[in-house]
Amino acid sequence: MAKVLLAINSGSSSVKISVFSATFRKTPQQIAEAQVSGLTAGPVAVFYTCHNKTKKKAEKAWQPVEQQDDAFELLLGLFIDDPNLQEIKSKADIAITCHRIVHGGDYASSQLIGPVTYDNIEALSNLAPLHNRAALTIVRSCLDQLPDAANIAYFDSQFHSTIPEHIRTYPVNPDIARKNGLRKYGFHGLSYSFITRSVAGYLGKEIGELSIIALHLGSGASACAIKNGQSWDTSMGLTPLAGLPGATRSGSVDPSLVFHYTNDVGKLTPYSTPELHISRAEDILNKQSGWKSLTGTTDFRAISESDDPACKLAFDIFVDRICGFVGSYYVALRGQVDALVFAGGIGEKSSKLRDRVAQSVSCLGFEIDDTSNAAEITDVVQDVSAKGSRHGVLVCQTDEQFEMARSCAEDERIW
Amino acid sequence: MAKVLLAINSGSSSVKISVFSATFRKTPQQIAEAQVSGLTAGPVAVFYTCHNKTKKKAEKAWQPVEQQDDAFELLLGLFIDDPNLQEIKSKADIAITCHRIVHGGDYASSQLIGPVTYDNIEALSNLAPLHNRAALTIVRSCLDQLPDAANIAYFDSQFHSTIPEHIRTYPVNPDIARKNGLRKYGFHGLSYSFITRSVAGYLGKEIGELSIIALHLGSGASACAIKNGQSWDTSMGLTPLAGLPGATRSGSVDPSLVFHYTNDVGKLTPYSTPELHISRAEDILNKQSGWKSLTGTTDFRAISESDDPACKLAFDIFVDRICGFVGSYYVALRGQVDALVFAGGIGEKSSKLRDRVAQSVSCLGFEIDDTSNAAEITDVVQDVSAKGSRHGVLVCQTDEQFEMARSCAEDERIW
Repeated sequence: MAKVLLAINSGSSSVKISVFSATFRKTPQQIAEAQVSGLTAGPVAVFYTCHNKTKKKAEKAWQPVEQQDDAFELLLGLFIDDPNLQEIKSKADIAITCHRIVHGGDYASSQLIGPVTYDNIEALSNLAPLHNRAALTIVRSCLDQLPDAANIAYFDSQFHSTIPEHIRTYPVNPDIARKNGLRKYGFHGLSYSFITRSVAGYLGKEIGELSIIALHLGSGASACAIKNGQSWDTSMGLTPLAGLPGATRSGSVDPSLVFHYTNDVGKLTPYSTPELHISRAEDILNKQSGWKSLTGTTDFRAISESDDPACKLAFDIFVDRICGFVGSYYVALRGQVDALVFAGGIGEKSSKLRDRVAQSVSCLGFEIDDTSNAAEITDVVQDVSAKGSRHGVLVCQTDEQFEMARSCAEDERIW
Repeated sequence: MAKVLLAINSGSSSVKISVFSATFRKTPQQIAEAQVSGLTAGPVAVFYTCHNKTKKKAEKAWQPVEQQDDAFELLLGLFIDDPNLQEIKSKADIAITCHRIVHGGDYASSQLIGPVTYDNIEALSNLAPLHNRAALTIVRSCLDQLPDAANIAYFDSQFHSTIPEHIRTYPVNPDIARKNGLRKYGFHGLSYSFITRSVAGYLGKEIGELSIIALHLGSGASACAIKNGQSWDTSMGLTPLAGLPGATRSGSVDPSLVFHYTNDVGKLTPYSTPELHISRAEDILNKQSGWKSLTGTTDFRAISESDDPACKLAFDIFVDRICGFVGSYYVALRGQVDALVFAGGIGEKSSKLRDRVAQSVSCLGFEIDDTSNAAEITDVVQDVSAKGSRHGVLVCQTDEQFEMARSCAEDERIW
């Protein structure tokens, strides 16, 4: 029997929910999607789509929505109040909620969330206080408001549990590393899982035979070397800070840098709580850096179209760092690469970025076709490689919510 | 007329001096070499070679030598007291002293050191308090004890002044970056300068036409992409901490890591001075990490020969990180690479490391010949590539002191 499933994806300033009709071992069918954005800086905007026919961009003045759980409440109300969404007439109709949690510590698979698991997840959030908090407030709301629904946590780090020891280990004191959980975890795992499955299907390969360099490029950006269907290396590390720069994130910089940036970097920020400690340094490098700090905007499309020297610099920095990882992961995969795959908001939308990256890595045998690259991306996986390119170049419209729903539909624990 | 020149290379626990007979626009001739090691941890050891014939390893019990300037005093005494070293009968015979200074800030060339320059160099040392201090104490001694000698500072960062803006810029607040001098500087520049000149000579190319990936691998390790004879990118950054791990240095780790390693990372260490601030974090990542933290020893040869799992892990980590930079710089150079060049203590001595790296990057067209690679390295540049390798693989016995002396002999300001 079909069940209503909410796949919930909350970021620091937005909450997105995809509603699926899910049946055991069947492909879930999306029936609605809604998003609240502008949570921290405002203005709050709400987007809502139902059954693909009623696409409404709600523009009425919303009450101030500041917290992720307020946003969740609002979206829940939208679903229940919409007469076109027959599947959700009350909260009781919701059977399953899936939550994307950024940092899962040592969890190598999704977890059914009861009170004990909740506490465990909250505890490991000290490793990623900036990243887990939003999702956890919504998990809390679900436990309280939807007591009969199954709650499942999907961790962005779990896809990377296959990274070998010599890659995930930092060359620091191993006793302290063990005690404090200091290693490379990696993130964007739901996306990489979706990409791996989709690209394998597109190329007609078994997942276990697929090796790709995947780029998830959005306001948070990362690269991943996927070897025989499993994560071999990825650019993010202990936290999502390492690796590529993002909209407000520095990415990898000299670990000494922040000590020369300001004094008192170790001090806690005013919005630390007794449970969650956020140092000023982490706030600077995660929230006050990236291309926003160079250009004044988080809008990468505006940056890529501008002739302003600061925008050109930010664009060039991003291309340079991406190409560095492509070269590095080409070696990690010993040149056995089925495709270079672009995904994420920027990876899917910016043909200019794809073009610049592909030009720079053409010495590795990745070549783009200008016409294919300029075409609108409408398929889940779309080929943009030039005829005769030694390796494929693909664009993948990644979908973290679908990946959670798909995985849920296979999960014997909840059926 | 020939002048006596001391090329002084001081590290955190050793001082090495090469004595040259130098003539304007001629290749300097080395006449003696001496080294004091074990300064911080002891036992103090002194090595001394004169005119290539009297090679003596002095083993008498030395007075405790704790500071770099004590070591300098000791070595100066050795030179003056040695009847075989006719060229130095008294301090007055020393006409030129060259100093390797790690961090040169924005200096793009060597500097004659007078009192003002000295103060400038001391001021910029705040960016690299752990690295400049040793050399500066000896510069001070030379200014005091050899008032008639010309003092010249050679900066390890100056070779990298050609790194383009989009590579040297960190994606952080540009006003603060400008004010605090936060950018990629890069180090090991004397070595890369020596390597570039030597490899160009070996390959019969103009320096301006040479493009190589150079690896300076010692207890401090870095990689450099050299494009048309100039530094295009290098793995060290604002300080020598970034990039590859070293004997006691973590290399690049998630910039958040140290905040999860210990509390109070921003606190100053007990050996900070009013002028030089060294945070606990910088001390941990520079002095308490690297392969020593994983294996208990700084001796890379012992690590590479051991079957202990911790040693194998440390070896694999080093190979992995090196190969990452080779891939990255191969792309940076658009595949136009004359050679991959191994240098530095480990790069020159560890055929096992060269073999492992070359195997891993063979997909880029670098192939090693087992016999050549196993042979003793006796030439300044020695070819270890396999017949038919698409790109060369070379070993270069780098010599920072010679590079200073050579540059001095060309320097019109002092002749």
